[in-house]
Amino acid sequence: MEKFKDVQSENPINTYSLDRVGLTNVARPIKVHRNKTVTLIPTFRVFVDLPPSRKGSDLSRDIEALEDVVGQEVDGKIKGIEYVAELIVDRLLERHPYATSAEAQLVADYFLERKNPKGRKTTERYQIQGIARKKDGEKTIRYIGATATGISVCPSAMKTVSTLTGRMSDEPPFISHNQRNDVTIIMSVPDGKDVEVDTLIDIAEASMSAPTFELLKREEEGMLVLQAHKNPKFVEDVVRDVVKLIVKKFEDFPDTVMIEVRSESYETIHKHNAYAEKKGTLGDFRKELKEN
Amino acid sequence: MEKFKDVQSENPINTYSLDRVGLTNVARPIKVHRNKTVTLIPTFRVFVDLPPSRKGSDLSRDIEALEDVVGQEVDGKIKGIEYVAELIVDRLLERHPYATSAEAQLVADYFLERKNPKGRKTTERYQIQGIARKKDGEKTIRYIGATATGISVCPSAMKTVSTLTGRMSDEPPFISHNQRNDVTIIMSVPDGKDVEVDTLIDIAEASMSAPTFELLKREEEGMLVLQAHKNPKFVEDVVRDVVKLIVKKFEDFPDTVMIEVRSESYETIHKHNAYAEKKGTLGDFRKELKEN
Amino acid sequence: MEKFKDVQSENPINTYSLDRVGLTNVARPIKVHRNKTVTLIPTFRVFVDLPPSRKGSDLSRDIEALEDVVGQEVDGKIKGIEYVAELIVDRLLERHPYATSAEAQLVADYFLERKNPKGRKTTERYQIQGIARKKDGEKTIRYIGATATGISVCPSAMKTVSTLTGRMSDEPPFISHNQRNDVTIIMSVPDGKDVEVDTLIDIAEASMSAPTFELLKREEEGMLVLQAHKNPKFVEDVVRDVVKLIVKKFEDFPDTVMIEVRSESYETIHKHNAYAEKKGTLGDFRKELKEN
Amino acid sequence: MEKFKDVQSENPINTYSLDRVGLTNVARPIKVHRNKTVTLIPTFRVFVDLPPSRKGSDLSRDIEALEDVVGQEVDGKIKGIEYVAELIVDRLLERHPYATSAEAQLVADYFLERKNPKGRKTTERYQIQGIARKKDGEKTIRYIGATATGISVCPSAMKTVSTLTGRMSDEPPFISHNQRNDVTIIMSVPDGKDVEVDTLIDIAEASMSAPTFELLKREEEGMLVLQAHKNPKFVEDVVRDVVKLIVKKFEDFPDTVMIEVRSESYETIHKHNAYAEKKGTLGDFRKELKEN
Repeated sequence: MEKFKDVQSENPINTYSLDRVGLTNVARPIKVHRNKTVTLIPTFRVFVDLPPSRKGSDLSRDIEALEDVVGQEVDGKIKGIEYVAELIVDRLLERHPYATSAEAQLVADYFLERKNPKGRKTTERYQIQGIARKKDGEKTIRYIGATATGISVCPSAMKTVSTLTGRMSDEPPFISHNQRNDVTIIMSVPDGKDVEVDTLIDIAEASMSAPTFELLKREEEGMLVLQAHKNPKFVEDVVRDVVKLIVKKFEDFPDTVMIEVRSESYETIHKHNAYAEKKGTLGDFRKELKEN
Repeated sequence: MEKFKDVQSENPINTYSLDRVGLTNVARPIKVHRNKTVTLIPTFRVFVDLPPSRKGSDLSRDIEALEDVVGQEVDGKIKGIEYVAELIVDRLLERHPYATSAEAQLVADYFLERKNPKGRKTTERYQIQGIARKKDGEKTIRYIGATATGISVCPSAMKTVSTLTGRMSDEPPFISHNQRNDVTIIMSVPDGKDVEVDTLIDIAEASMSAPTFELLKREEEGMLVLQAHKNPKFVEDVVRDVVKLIVKKFEDFPDTVMIEVRSESYETIHKHNAYAEKKGTLGDFRKELKEN
Repeated sequence: MEKFKDVQSENPINTYSLDRVGLTNVARPIKVHRNKTVTLIPTFRVFVDLPPSRKGSDLSRDIEALEDVVGQEVDGKIKGIEYVAELIVDRLLERHPYATSAEAQLVADYFLERKNPKGRKTTERYQIQGIARKKDGEKTIRYIGATATGISVCPSAMKTVSTLTGRMSDEPPFISHNQRNDVTIIMSVPDGKDVEVDTLIDIAEASMSAPTFELLKREEEGMLVLQAHKNPKFVEDVVRDVVKLIVKKFEDFPDTVMIEVRSESYETIHKHNAYAEKKGTLGDFRKELKEN
Repeated sequence: MEKFKDVQSENPINTYSLDRVGLTNVARPIKVHRNKTVTLIPTFRVFVDLPPSRKGSDLSRDIEALEDVVGQEVDGKIKGIEYVAELIVDRLLERHPYATSAEAQLVADYFLERKNPKGRKTTERYQIQGIARKKDGEKTIRYIGATATGISVCPSAMKTVSTLTGRMSDEPPFISHNQRNDVTIIMSVPDGKDVEVDTLIDIAEASMSAPTFELLKREEEGMLVLQAHKNPKFVEDVVRDVVKLIVKKFEDFPDTVMIEVRSESYETIHKHNAYAEKKGTLGDFRKELKEN
């Protein structure tokens, strides 16, 4: 007999099931290994469901499930944070036998060495995420995501400025306003396939007016500014171009892959932000383009 | 003929529709009137969809739609922020004739005069939200929401402490740990019915171990602490008790009403937070309780 | 005799005084009146010091001091938030007889109706602050502050682009990158003088490449973009120009007035921000310019 | 001759010096080595001053100074983040020959393996900071800081509850309210001495009612709750106890060492936070206690 009463296991009378019970705001360093070993410090959110027959979910088991994975298994042997999420989900279901579903979400800063317009090396900060969800008797669904910050130049103001300055017949680019732009791509990873966060970051950066760099000496700065102005983009254009590149890049992926794309630009001529978003499956996207 | 080229109306070749295009991070003071006139300073998010036949959404029309409502109509004549959201949605669809759906979200601080355990007046801060979504040919769906911060006392630690101190046979309450707890309730508002944010706040506060107060003199503080310890609650209990009160309070509301309830507690014995959530329709909730 | 023990008034043995003891994260709507009556919802921070002879500061008195002012006195009769801060400081010292110093800080969103480049009305969001500090036997020092968000265009990239595009001999402006820029001005208010937050906001906006507007129709957007590019500014230029305007505007203010100016720009070609700052007295500033 | 004009080096007429010009919001992973090698991902803020004879500070040199240190030198060979800050300050002054002062600030999450009340291993999250400031012809001043989150139990409510429940003659502890409490200690590091962040974290945790742990099984949770209730503390007590431990621990440190201590508690019976703070030199603190 247990010495201390297990209050969580009490059977409440006449009550409801809960969809998600768990922990938020937990952080822990982990090492993952794709082409190189990387130390990440993700923030975790982990949940299981709760049947009406139990008063509480043993939340200390959530930390144990997380430690099972983070402390023992993830040390350069795991490929990416979506697989860390998947392992945690498995352990959550083992440690909560009453649960029929589990979920783990990880968000972390991520750094890549990049080359700026003249090839100078610079280290750039991104944000990545890994999500796994599992229901009893179903396969785990894994998601991988990335957010890249770049620059977008307004195509409309550029046109107006060319008119205001009487240069309509000249070749663009012209003066415009340009913004810090956060592009986020999240997609499900089908079994037997892999999605690299670096690929998602490449697609996000390729879809903005230009990527941005922490280190730009004088000429490099001018080159980047020109490059961005030669490629003006609304947030709408950015999202559509991400979708196009996704459809092309993952042409051998099944129709069921779920995709979410967002672009938010911190307008420099306004105090508010501009925002565009598209969600759907690869199948939806393939079908839509054929029909337009 | 327009002098300045309308870049947004260009017809791009072979591209995608977008689900949501609009503005985030806009704030503006408004006056609403239910039983009293209240000045709110909401943050707004407004969106319409975009067909594949248009390059861009005229985002300046979003500000105009918002100003139509905020500047001219809402001056103590509108009942609540869910109706402000609905009016904005109507104006968004008027001003964006190519759009087939629109959405407006408002979040604002909100203050109520309360009485503490000895009846002393104190002003308490809450957060409220109003959401409206409309698709062509369908009715607008309105949501109203509220977040209240209260206290929750852990039932499990209380039991363990009673054992550790050899007081198992005594009457509770015993020592436990207690947390700041944020409870959020969001529900759709059916036509012909009204939901007061004050009602949602009352339900949220009634479902925690106790409400909290900015002003508590010595005895009042002790009374509140005792009251909370006589009513220990897990986040799981809090969410279930909110659902019970919702089902009871809105017994004449239709089955289709959508409800989301969340409780997040900022644990004092851990650095992480505990979290519980339940989503569903009133019909789901009514059915579930009958079956358990 | 009091029924409940006053633990705060206990005399601890052999301990330290404390500089600041009080409350943070309190919000309450207030009405102030300068040229018009305005509802603000400031967040308050209030503190008194604590002598070594007392175990604790009665924190419920801080709320009472705040309510004394907010609930009873400030209803369109108080001119600005720096005076609200001053009144709270007076009440803090009355209610904490053991204290020898007190401080109150208020920060709030603030809205002004502005006219955009073609004179169209638009409502703009700013942030204002009021601070008061008082020590026994000394006069209260009041501070007023404002933050305005505008646009700054990079002068260096503009020059480089003119070289890269072979237009060195043409008249500026040229293409450059431009940023969202937050300018903050805080200054002490001497007795017998008044400083309007609107004046500080005017100075902040006049010191950037251009102010920004929530509502800009096509031509207005182009005009604003051109205006900003004709007036390129580093964060360094912005801070210096604020200081120049302050020195000119407040030429009849005493040398002892304390001033702090900050400009932070959210770079669009980098992921980091650029920052410049200058602190000093009006006297320092007057003297420095004579010497340069 | 340079091809691209160096706008920053232009000599503006009749203008002001600036106190701090530089970068904020830069992050980069680094490895430091004290007893073990640790990967940190600090956020950096770096500044130099600017003379009136220069239009701008070459901000790309700030990134180069940071990369000089982060990329080449800090790879397990540097002892702590205050030394990373010091190295960056040296490089800033080398790369900005016109500057007479420089500053670097680093803030990072930091993790320690701890043992909970029954000795079970658990990984805990803290925040650490390193700061260095240097003026021409003066020695660099280094600061090290740490923030630990623990629990504090209210001594006053405990006393009131004992009265309300008629248990005044019983032995404490009684029921009270308890809070999540953030304690921050920042101190300057004199030449020839070292301060470990782990020591500051130990002192912060020893000064609260109890430390907190991510993993607590049932009995461990009860033990921690009891331990905290046997050691009730106001935020005032926490700051004073930190100061006492600092004075004792660093008794061989010079009087000139600067110290700042803060405790902020997220009240569970209120929506606001309680706050206490003390700043001064070790010499001040030593003198004050002798005089009381």
